[in-house]
Amino acid sequence: MDMIKVSANSRTAAVAGAIAGVIREHKRAEVQAIGAGAVNQAVKAMALASSYLKNDGIEISFSPEFVDIEIEEKVRTAIKFVVESRAVPVVE
Amino acid sequence: MDMIKVSANSRTAAVAGAIAGVIREHKRAEVQAIGAGAVNQAVKAMALASSYLKNDGIEISFSPEFVDIEIEEKVRTAIKFVVESRAVPVVE
Repeated sequence: MDMIKVSANSRTAAVAGAIAGVIREHKRAEVQAIGAGAVNQAVKAMALASSYLKNDGIEISFSPEFVDIEIEEKVRTAIKFVVESRAVPVVE
Repeated sequence: MDMIKVSANSRTAAVAGAIAGVIREHKRAEVQAIGAGAVNQAVKAMALASSYLKNDGIEISFSPEFVDIEIEEKVRTAIKFVVESRAVPVVE
């Protein structure tokens, strides 16, 4: 499964759409962000994806963890969000 | 239950300790942040709280949502994180 990488310049709606798409298909997604601006975009995208998916009867929750990644031979600390879904009853 | 309010200047370890304490007592906590710096601190604190609580056999996940709050007669959009715990088997 591909990691969804978010930057400070990522569009919230585009990232939210990507998260919702991966969740619908795989029930699980991984989102990675480095730096305050990127983390903020990722969180806003997850809040928006939550409301998209709620209409389909899917609730998501996520767990953040620190991961060290190497970019241009320097180690940086990123936040990886593991997003998971659970089905909820849809009230008609 | 009190809302844990996080600012861009909040110390990660202090917020993580507060989250872990509330989760241990109530199994649920609410964390509020306004702005990119505050959201980033909140996420880092939740990642740190996750690792504190994992040692006690508690896993946490959270759901972000947008909330409008009024500060000095202006409406601002905050992120509210609902943090919830589930017990996991501890492997001895």
